Amino acid sequence: MSTDSTEDIESVTGELRDLLAGPHASTRATVLAGLEPYAGLLEEAETLGLDEFRDRVRDVVVELAGSGLTGLGFPKEYGGGADLGASIAAFETLAHGDLSVLVKVGVQFGLFGGAILQLGTERHHEAYLADLVSARVLGCFAMTEHRHGSNVAALETVATYDKETEEFVLTTTREDAFKDYIGNAARHAELAVVFAQLEIDGESQGVHAFVARIREDGQPVVGVRIADDGRKMGLNGVDNGRIWFDGLRIPRENLLNRFADVDADGTYRSEIDSVNRRFFTMLGTLIQGRVSVGGAGLTAAKVALTIATRYALQRRQFDSESGENDLETRLLDYGQHQRRLLPLIARSYALTFAQETLVDQLHRSFSGEVPDEEAEVFRRELESRAAGTKALATWHATRTIQECREACGGAGYLAENRFTALKADTDVFTTFEGDNTVLLQLVAKGLLTDYSSEFSSMDQLDLVRFVAGQAVETVVERANVHKLRERIRDLLPGGNEEDADIRDPEYHLEMLTFREEHILAGVARRLKGGIDRGTAPGIVFSHVQDHVIALGRAHVERVVHEAFVDKLESLPEGPTRELLAKVADLAALSAIEADRAWWMEHGRLTVQRSKAITSEINSLCRELRPEARTLVDAFGIPDAFLRAEDLVAESALS
Amino acid sequence: MSTDSTEDIESVTGELRDLLAGPHASTRATVLAGLEPYAGLLEEAETLGLDEFRDRVRDVVVELAGSGLTGLGFPKEYGGGADLGASIAAFETLAHGDLSVLVKVGVQFGLFGGAILQLGTERHHEAYLADLVSARVLGCFAMTEHRHGSNVAALETVATYDKETEEFVLTTTREDAFKDYIGNAARHAELAVVFAQLEIDGESQGVHAFVARIREDGQPVVGVRIADDGRKMGLNGVDNGRIWFDGLRIPRENLLNRFADVDADGTYRSEIDSVNRRFFTMLGTLIQGRVSVGGAGLTAAKVALTIATRYALQRRQFDSESGENDLETRLLDYGQHQRRLLPLIARSYALTFAQETLVDQLHRSFSGEVPDEEAEVFRRELESRAAGTKALATWHATRTIQECREACGGAGYLAENRFTALKADTDVFTTFEGDNTVLLQLVAKGLLTDYSSEFSSMDQLDLVRFVAGQAVETVVERANVHKLRERIRDLLPGGNEEDADIRDPEYHLEMLTFREEHILAGVARRLKGGIDRGTAPGIVFSHVQDHVIALGRAHVERVVHEAFVDKLESLPEGPTRELLAKVADLAALSAIEADRAWWMEHGRLTVQRSKAITSEINSLCRELRPEARTLVDAFGIPDAFLRAEDLVAESALS
Repeated sequence: MSTDSTEDIESVTGELRDLLAGPHASTRATVLAGLEPYAGLLEEAETLGLDEFRDRVRDVVVELAGSGLTGLGFPKEYGGGADLGASIAAFETLAHGDLSVLVKVGVQFGLFGGAILQLGTERHHEAYLADLVSARVLGCFAMTEHRHGSNVAALETVATYDKETEEFVLTTTREDAFKDYIGNAARHAELAVVFAQLEIDGESQGVHAFVARIREDGQPVVGVRIADDGRKMGLNGVDNGRIWFDGLRIPRENLLNRFADVDADGTYRSEIDSVNRRFFTMLGTLIQGRVSVGGAGLTAAKVALTIATRYALQRRQFDSESGENDLETRLLDYGQHQRRLLPLIARSYALTFAQETLVDQLHRSFSGEVPDEEAEVFRRELESRAAGTKALATWHATRTIQECREACGGAGYLAENRFTALKADTDVFTTFEGDNTVLLQLVAKGLLTDYSSEFSSMDQLDLVRFVAGQAVETVVERANVHKLRERIRDLLPGGNEEDADIRDPEYHLEMLTFREEHILAGVARRLKGGIDRGTAPGIVFSHVQDHVIALGRAHVERVVHEAFVDKLESLPEGPTRELLAKVADLAALSAIEADRAWWMEHGRLTVQRSKAITSEINSLCRELRPEARTLVDAFGIPDAFLRAEDLVAESALS
Repeated sequence: MSTDSTEDIESVTGELRDLLAGPHASTRATVLAGLEPYAGLLEEAETLGLDEFRDRVRDVVVELAGSGLTGLGFPKEYGGGADLGASIAAFETLAHGDLSVLVKVGVQFGLFGGAILQLGTERHHEAYLADLVSARVLGCFAMTEHRHGSNVAALETVATYDKETEEFVLTTTREDAFKDYIGNAARHAELAVVFAQLEIDGESQGVHAFVARIREDGQPVVGVRIADDGRKMGLNGVDNGRIWFDGLRIPRENLLNRFADVDADGTYRSEIDSVNRRFFTMLGTLIQGRVSVGGAGLTAAKVALTIATRYALQRRQFDSESGENDLETRLLDYGQHQRRLLPLIARSYALTFAQETLVDQLHRSFSGEVPDEEAEVFRRELESRAAGTKALATWHATRTIQECREACGGAGYLAENRFTALKADTDVFTTFEGDNTVLLQLVAKGLLTDYSSEFSSMDQLDLVRFVAGQAVETVVERANVHKLRERIRDLLPGGNEEDADIRDPEYHLEMLTFREEHILAGVARRLKGGIDRGTAPGIVFSHVQDHVIALGRAHVERVVHEAFVDKLESLPEGPTRELLAKVADLAALSAIEADRAWWMEHGRLTVQRSKAITSEINSLCRELRPEARTLVDAFGIPDAFLRAEDLVAESALS
């Protein structure tokens, strides 16, 4: 591509920006404009005391709610926007600003509000939605317990039904089984959605969700004890806390009864028979949290990349080529520095398009646009995709922010620049809304069980037994990975990969698909083999766990790059597409390079080709070097949110 | 190894602990005991205001100085301990506690004190050492500037000699060329060692160091402006600041004149002719800073690993094998979790032994134990080794602390546990005392130039020209890498690596040495080829930079594992050696696995062998699983410094 004039560059930047903003561009613009008055919060986060900052963040959240930017996912009759896709886009955009605001919004509208909306029925909607959408009432989402984070089906809070009074009695059954890390709990929440084991007449029906008032006039109600989780690595504008229930009584109507109900006389009724499946169906309705966190992590990574790239374009260090002037070499003219930043920029593009596809599917699924007969499988695949994209996007954020901080040296360490807050605030993204490692296992489980109706509720032992009960061929065929390859023309007629164009996106996809299929078959074979040899399922799982996680990762990598290719193919020929094609090549080849040993080990990559990939990446970095500014400008991060004045200024230094 | 009884386990733990503590075990014990009363500072760091915390840290540093723990590296006549090795061990041990204290100690005694000691002569020692060793006077080390961090030879502060008054005049030559990130400058330092371009009669002699008073009665003196760098990501107990010199006059005697002097009449005298070599000789005397930072990073990584491993041994999640009780599976019984932690533990062992060797060499070099005829080359190799070990140890710290935080889930995010402070405080280790990437280039430069007397002062263009001026064979032969292989018996007579025992340390070293030699030859060839083709040296360097950095890394990896093998070979047969041999295997095989694609690409690893390495690592993880507690207990971190009560408690949870 040659961008000959300023005009051309501006036009390409604009087109790229529109592409990245996607279908909800106008929502993004509105939120950005609405957020800009609060950019100063990025400074206040450094100076206010803990409770002061928490209250300030609460105030901002309430103000944002007033402007309608946080309730886009709720029905119009309760003050919402009835547009789930737009609401995720809005949330991703909030990640430009202080991330405590983002997470507090997530707690109030995504988790607490989402649970009322998705798990409740009309009586709950009538009672709570208007108040929570306007933030007149703040709530929290009390699921995680101190002893149970990943394994939430084993929660130890119990809700016993008392026929006499037609109430549920909420009890924390052991002192160390308190609800923990609950956002909004330490200070602001009046209400809570509480997850607890439902017990009727001594019989357990599994985990259900209840609405309970936990605070009145700023004090915990009788039957509730609350403690403060205190300072955290970051996100200190969110008041995380611990909750114990000492026999708190709530009316029968407070059971969020969309999927199951209890009659006055204690009769339990649900259309879903299996205890586990019932609970995981409930959880499945809450996946927008995962989708949101992944998107927010991506925004944070883009902020970091914009700062580090602009710094690398103005910062000079060590002697330059040209004797004619005294200027030193720009950081981005070092091969190593290009290698540090450009592949991360490319991956951010890839993940953005994957996230867009995910949000689109989420929107279609929740707004009933998917035909009934496909709806359930669609939903399960969506759940898997949400889990996997969240894992990759949040790990990408952690890695990118760290790399960018180091690429800015000592200056990156000063709190006046934004890395300090970005790092500390996003760090927990990799473990909240599902630990990434556990999430990749969920993805693998979906593939191994062909998204069986039970898949999300299976634990590792169920999975081992399930897979071991089938022929390996059945597992592989059902997984349908090979179907995905139909789109790929036969690139390698002689089986000689050197014939394929190293920059052909179809070649990249072919490689990624081969890996996915191969690991899938391997995992199935190992699980089955272990059981056939009489090894206990837990040991079999432990030994195969790294392959299971590799399978999850391989699947998501393929899905991510597919989204990029689809986006590319939808574009008209021209300089924007030409540039984006290079970015796609860089993203895909970097992903392949990172695991190139695997393909060599599996006879799918020759030594020559492997080396060629590395040198092609270096070439792509050099080709993209002149477009670096265009590529980060297209992220569209306003300067006010970079908060790294010194680093991005086109000062006398350049 | 089989540890049959509690007694055996305790004896192995004790032996391992002694091995890790090394020759300065008693110094370490003394410092640990002296530090324990200040463990509460870990909490105060979270609660005190910025200036309060800085003053508190200052007070602790002054108290530690009073107990003699911080001045071990200074001559006895000034209140020191005259034992450089012990002083580094003491510093590494201080890293158990609050890291602001550590860094403030490093600034006062390592950087400021070290410069006076190493660059000054008797008059400076008499004037300052006793006061600075006792911390009656605090100082700072004003080298880095806003525009020059890595390229310090290009500093823009100037010291002009004024014959009339026999004074130097210190001037910041442009407003944005201020000294930056200077520890102790914002609040506490009265004195500074200032690095500036020395100019006499309009002629520049390169960068020299001067002592200057910058503060009097708490206020900057006339001719000095100071600004506060403000809050940082971590280390907020250290008052980093900016300094501008507006024609500050200091007496001629304040030039630190060990390597060069200026007579009253302005005659400049130095035994080192080259401007660059003179400056880098001065810098070379200050390498103890790098050695210290690497060691401190390693201590921090061990703290994190101790917390995460003890957590993984008590925390249970998801169904367990055995139906007989209700307990869930311990995290460390998951294959994935073993993979996460055990290789990092093994690498910590390897780096500890490498650090011990480095400290020993440093001690010998600085105490004149090396014969004169070898002293200079010994010193240059030491410089390279210090740079490389610092890079690997600090990256290891960043990676390990992150992995451990994630392995503790949400609990790892609470400030009450130690990860928050560990992460924030150690993050800058990768870029201070030399950016790690630049340091690996220094290592490579040493190898490529056979530690030529000019090597540390060469910039990238000099390097390219130097290497291009030689035959590739000369470069490779001089680098002497092949000499190192003499110790390695001919493992592969038929060239068939499958014949070598996968757990043979000599095989691991052979692999690591092969890589180093091969990359070295490749870099030499590429540099030469580029110049021969007429490409400009800067472009040649940029294109080859990733190989140059890979060379530095390959060299240090080999050196690290060599240190582990040497340590192993020095041990008597027995359960401790048996256990340690597995740890060494895990460390080496993990390092090889991480870059296994390289060996495959270079015909040195078959596909089968590559897969065998991966499964051998899994086996080693399973074998070491029962010894995990022993391995981290041997780090010898007292519970008071873990500050993660909840995570490490053998509570009811287990």
